[in-house]
Amino acid sequence: MSAQAKQRGRLIVFDGGEGSGKTTQLRRLRAEFDRLRVPYVALHEPGGTPLGTEVRRLLLDPASDITARAEALLFMASRAQLVEGQIGPSLARGQNVLLDRFFLSTYAYQIAGRGLSEVDVRSANMFATAELIPDLTILLTFPVRDGLQRAAHRAAAHDRIEALGEAFHRRVADAFAEFAKPDWQAAHAECGPIIALSAEGTETEVGDRVREAIENKWPGLLQQRKA
Amino acid sequence: MSAQAKQRGRLIVFDGGEGSGKTTQLRRLRAEFDRLRVPYVALHEPGGTPLGTEVRRLLLDPASDITARAEALLFMASRAQLVEGQIGPSLARGQNVLLDRFFLSTYAYQIAGRGLSEVDVRSANMFATAELIPDLTILLTFPVRDGLQRAAHRAAAHDRIEALGEAFHRRVADAFAEFAKPDWQAAHAECGPIIALSAEGTETEVGDRVREAIENKWPGLLQQRKA
Repeated sequence: MSAQAKQRGRLIVFDGGEGSGKTTQLRRLRAEFDRLRVPYVALHEPGGTPLGTEVRRLLLDPASDITARAEALLFMASRAQLVEGQIGPSLARGQNVLLDRFFLSTYAYQIAGRGLSEVDVRSANMFATAELIPDLTILLTFPVRDGLQRAAHRAAAHDRIEALGEAFHRRVADAFAEFAKPDWQAAHAECGPIIALSAEGTETEVGDRVREAIENKWPGLLQQRKA
Repeated sequence: MSAQAKQRGRLIVFDGGEGSGKTTQLRRLRAEFDRLRVPYVALHEPGGTPLGTEVRRLLLDPASDITARAEALLFMASRAQLVEGQIGPSLARGQNVLLDRFFLSTYAYQIAGRGLSEVDVRSANMFATAELIPDLTILLTFPVRDGLQRAAHRAAAHDRIEALGEAFHRRVADAFAEFAKPDWQAAHAECGPIIALSAEGTETEVGDRVREAIENKWPGLLQQRKA
């Protein structure tokens, strides 16, 4: 047990557009890890630290007047704190980290959505994470129109980012679709390995795809352990 | 008058270590501009915008747990907002901008003080400012020991950054001394033109040096105008 506790944890990210079901699927994997007694912590961006909570409040407040660059840098500040304060220490302790959104959301929202330079955002991101790279990103994909509809069914009170309008969210959704392509992934090795899975079907069907992807990546991780 | 209003304003930065008197000298130049009816706005970092005020509160709160990278990125977020929301529009309107601290403080505190990579901080800074460069930075310098003493005479209630200890503040002070050297300036053209002035002597004596530097840079700017 002590030998296993010393093994570095895995950083597993769930990413995807609004309504892709990533948060639901992350919750399912948590339940699976709980059942199998696989050690983990679950985190989300922005948040997960007192600084992140403050940044989240600033970013989501519809009354905030924040430029695109300032927004990206606030996300990166929150990320830096999360990586150094929580993710890094958890991985070092041998805990797996399940993270809701990470690099791909930055690329989708800040580059495709806001139109910031990819080179600049990539540099700021690498600085924020001190070059930590996810061990696996599960990207949940679906036809674009469908996702926008799903998201539209959510709470009527929009936050600052949800209120950005259809063209913005269309660019973001198109970007996530692009990230599923092998060509894109080959050109963005700094994001680490990405597995794109269809988010279509029932929650259980998607959950089975996630389970299979994890099993392929780390054979035996999701096998029943001895208590 | 309308032709003059269309001329782009000048970005004039006052920078230097704790106790260098930069804020006092900036205030003197404001008074001079007021007297001569030279249009300007005076700003400081972090702050100057609602976002900056929030960031300032986070950064100075002794209870905040903020990593070096997160701190640098918060400063950069505040800077991005200040540049795009205030400095850029003011310059475009023909107003001069007098700024208390800018690039050199970042280089001193984040690189020399915190030990972050110069390449990374430089990139994040260029991203934050969209490559805006000051027209002139007035760097006020003094022997290091003297400045630390001056700063120590200030309010007993230290903020989070003032409380970082003598070794940190020594590195920062040494960095500011380094920035006064022509070799350093030649290797850091991204900071724009820097004029290093001795902060020793009376407030009036230092003020005369500032005045002379401004006059040399923009002959006639500080001449009496017709009302």
